[in-house]
Amino acid sequence: MGQTVGILGGDARFSYLARMLAVDGFSVNTWGVAGEPDEKTLDEAASAERILLPAPLTRKDGQLNSERALALDTLWPRLRPDQRIYAGAVREKERSAAAACGLMLSDYFSREALTVKNAVPTAEGALQLALERTSVTLHGTPCLVIGFGRIGKLLAHDLKALGAQVSVSARRMEDLAWIDAFGYRPLRTNRLAGVLGPFRVIFNTVPHPVLGMPLLREVDGGCLLVELSSAAGIDAQAAAELGLTYVKAGGLPGRAAPESAALALKETLYQMWEEEL
Amino acid sequence: MGQTVGILGGDARFSYLARMLAVDGFSVNTWGVAGEPDEKTLDEAASAERILLPAPLTRKDGQLNSERALALDTLWPRLRPDQRIYAGAVREKERSAAAACGLMLSDYFSREALTVKNAVPTAEGALQLALERTSVTLHGTPCLVIGFGRIGKLLAHDLKALGAQVSVSARRMEDLAWIDAFGYRPLRTNRLAGVLGPFRVIFNTVPHPVLGMPLLREVDGGCLLVELSSAAGIDAQAAAELGLTYVKAGGLPGRAAPESAALALKETLYQMWEEEL
Amino acid sequence: MGQTVGILGGDARFSYLARMLAVDGFSVNTWGVAGEPDEKTLDEAASAERILLPAPLTRKDGQLNSERALALDTLWPRLRPDQRIYAGAVREKERSAAAACGLMLSDYFSREALTVKNAVPTAEGALQLALERTSVTLHGTPCLVIGFGRIGKLLAHDLKALGAQVSVSARRMEDLAWIDAFGYRPLRTNRLAGVLGPFRVIFNTVPHPVLGMPLLREVDGGCLLVELSSAAGIDAQAAAELGLTYVKAGGLPGRAAPESAALALKETLYQMWEEEL
Amino acid sequence: MGQTVGILGGDARFSYLARMLAVDGFSVNTWGVAGEPDEKTLDEAASAERILLPAPLTRKDGQLNSERALALDTLWPRLRPDQRIYAGAVREKERSAAAACGLMLSDYFSREALTVKNAVPTAEGALQLALERTSVTLHGTPCLVIGFGRIGKLLAHDLKALGAQVSVSARRMEDLAWIDAFGYRPLRTNRLAGVLGPFRVIFNTVPHPVLGMPLLREVDGGCLLVELSSAAGIDAQAAAELGLTYVKAGGLPGRAAPESAALALKETLYQMWEEEL
Repeated sequence: MGQTVGILGGDARFSYLARMLAVDGFSVNTWGVAGEPDEKTLDEAASAERILLPAPLTRKDGQLNSERALALDTLWPRLRPDQRIYAGAVREKERSAAAACGLMLSDYFSREALTVKNAVPTAEGALQLALERTSVTLHGTPCLVIGFGRIGKLLAHDLKALGAQVSVSARRMEDLAWIDAFGYRPLRTNRLAGVLGPFRVIFNTVPHPVLGMPLLREVDGGCLLVELSSAAGIDAQAAAELGLTYVKAGGLPGRAAPESAALALKETLYQMWEEEL
Repeated sequence: MGQTVGILGGDARFSYLARMLAVDGFSVNTWGVAGEPDEKTLDEAASAERILLPAPLTRKDGQLNSERALALDTLWPRLRPDQRIYAGAVREKERSAAAACGLMLSDYFSREALTVKNAVPTAEGALQLALERTSVTLHGTPCLVIGFGRIGKLLAHDLKALGAQVSVSARRMEDLAWIDAFGYRPLRTNRLAGVLGPFRVIFNTVPHPVLGMPLLREVDGGCLLVELSSAAGIDAQAAAELGLTYVKAGGLPGRAAPESAALALKETLYQMWEEEL
Repeated sequence: MGQTVGILGGDARFSYLARMLAVDGFSVNTWGVAGEPDEKTLDEAASAERILLPAPLTRKDGQLNSERALALDTLWPRLRPDQRIYAGAVREKERSAAAACGLMLSDYFSREALTVKNAVPTAEGALQLALERTSVTLHGTPCLVIGFGRIGKLLAHDLKALGAQVSVSARRMEDLAWIDAFGYRPLRTNRLAGVLGPFRVIFNTVPHPVLGMPLLREVDGGCLLVELSSAAGIDAQAAAELGLTYVKAGGLPGRAAPESAALALKETLYQMWEEEL
Repeated sequence: MGQTVGILGGDARFSYLARMLAVDGFSVNTWGVAGEPDEKTLDEAASAERILLPAPLTRKDGQLNSERALALDTLWPRLRPDQRIYAGAVREKERSAAAACGLMLSDYFSREALTVKNAVPTAEGALQLALERTSVTLHGTPCLVIGFGRIGKLLAHDLKALGAQVSVSARRMEDLAWIDAFGYRPLRTNRLAGVLGPFRVIFNTVPHPVLGMPLLREVDGGCLLVELSSAAGIDAQAAAELGLTYVKAGGLPGRAAPESAALALKETLYQMWEEEL
């Protein structure tokens, strides 16, 4: 069982995933996947034993995160309780709506290993942005990473590896000790006033407000602000008012390295499928 | 208040600590500290407002971990409930015995930041051992680190930085993902059979048995075994029977870099003292 | 003397340079510099005590490497023998033509320090290209750098720092020993047959043909070819016939990090000017 | 031909070399090699087709650099012109004396690849010394490397990799540009006055006087001085008078990693033997 897979929606990484699964012997049908021709109808794709849905599951308007328009509410009735359904970053109300149709969603992002693996392309995507959007080399350039979680850890590592002068801010004493142990300059996230002036790139990775108008006023006019958290830590409107360059960098794994991200997703799915037996 | 400090026992790092505190304006008396002349009697040193005790607190025989002989049981009656008393890696029965005398011990190792800071000299001490005890350069040499906690993380980083071929074993999928993300070869700690042959140095950092006789039989005769956990992960007796080179590396911060370890301890104590106000 | 500077032509780095020199107190006139408005006529800019010309000096058609059209032959008669004239990567026939007009050109690229400093933005520019043009993370990806000169050294360092699996090819035994000492896999440049298959990115840095049709046939269809040498080491036409992705990456310092490149150029000019006194 | 090898004298690396050659099928006789029992007489060992002599060839008193006493002058008459003789760091007068007996010495250290390979164990040996002789971690500690040749390059790399604050001094502008490009702080070797105070470890790698009494007076009392050049760059007597800790670190490859050094030597000899065919 489980040899047919339907992929509904998703960015370029799901296109790579479709091909990888096919190479491994699965019968794969896609619908609404970026870069893939839809050779099957929605109902054909939706009839597979295993259903893969994108991450995040929906766009802001409640539509499936897909190349083709489909309200999520109209998807559930097309699926069956005997199917295994996988999605990423599922919200509570989405899970409830699916449950009301008798469907159980498994969230592949609940696997810590996958989120770690996704941190690698996210960090490289952030580097790429910094390389593209600045007129200076990262080598020798003062950079600040706000937050020392998964992405902050790898991004700080990569920046230092390229010769940047790396400061990392965190709130917990333990994290500050690690930041120092890895050779970065430790800063307190809630005491950034007065130290922001020299930075040419500031990356935010924390999911709550850190840089509002008062702190942004201290930022140099030539500084690049990169928002890596879905819940904004940098006040985009304040940045715009101050004329600062601000980039909202979402979905980096699928954009910067869809093939690597697809491989990580595939490995995680296989791990989940093995445990389900 | 709190301007007098008594240091009772401890290795070289407590000697550095005594001098650092004196430079900062404290009146410091030591008794039984390695490398310090005892200019004061035990009772004089024990009368200070703040009392610093070593880590670990006792030797195996219940004696204070000190240059001079003193049963721990005979120390408590010499101290007073109004003193602030600090020790490291305090065991439950030690805490109880002190409490029975109305004394409260604060454990500086309960501070995660200090244990992180101690991981740096521990990792460097382990490197030093490997440099001293092998006939090969670390550069290009296959090394295994068992465990990816604080010490495992830094040690793996340092080994790779010097060009070693680094494998790291862990049990959790999340840790294995991190191990891969940092560029080490990930191995499963409970599946080491069959992969140990090529290693020239194996460091254990986990506090439970991993390498017993069956696995040690697979280890190359020229391999160096370094035990970094106080609770042995490598069966020392089996290693001896097999003629393998085994080093039990305890108390590395105090031995490899007592000055840096003293500085870390001082910073932690100041942090604790500030919070006590 | 020497307080007026004319900059004729050049890419974005000369725009940054103009502003830096002005901040340092020079009176600077530009003509034909990318991104700079021409507020002065050619003759006004060309009358300064010091004349800065671009690198390379000309385009293929013998025109000055400038935003505005000017045959190099018509430039020399506008300059005077008492001026100090600086250009980069000057060719012998250009030097002769200038000398025929009584002019002496100083080549700022004759300064080894500047070519080293330019290697940093070149390496970062090459990284950026690889990040942009591949669907995989550099982390974990097999990359080949052909040549271990200035750019090869830094590029290999940066790639390894980001976790790529780095091979470097060279011809001299000494270089191969260094390649190994820095932890890369050494390959012989003239023995690449049979080993090219696994690479996903191949960077060429050597100024003579290395990868022609026979070797390119061995390259994977998903491999990115990056030409970093002005004298092509990769046969672009053969790559095109084979459908391989080929990028000719010229002028990277001025494109990837014009501000850093301008700073390096300024420091070199100041060094030259100091020595001229 | 050439299947018998005699090794006369040498440190531990020649003991490893003897065993490696035997494993590869050569018939090897040793005499006076450190750690090897002399099962053969000098004349037996000296009769082989290929003769390997140590590096350096002699001690200060003109004796062969060997475990057993033998004046070099008495060695040459025991050898034959049809033998191939290899030695390291041969001095001109030694070469002449051999030539007078009709013997030709090949110097394996004339191979740049070998000197590069020896730089790896030398750098690791220097690290080991610094780890052993300081009371601080290298992490976070200001270190100075004088000279940016082979050993300086690798040592600076290793120190930075372990988190030290690395300064490197050189004289040539090009080297200073490289030092900066690799992320170290560049200093001018002939302008060290006034900047030596903060260093805790100073490594000299250049073969001419750099640190004499005037500069050594500026060095901190707790600083470790490590001399890595055979021609002293640090004035040992002045250091002693000032009470500074000074270590002369000679022959590090053979002491710190004799097995790796032996492997490098073997590879070089094989390369030479192949070319002789």
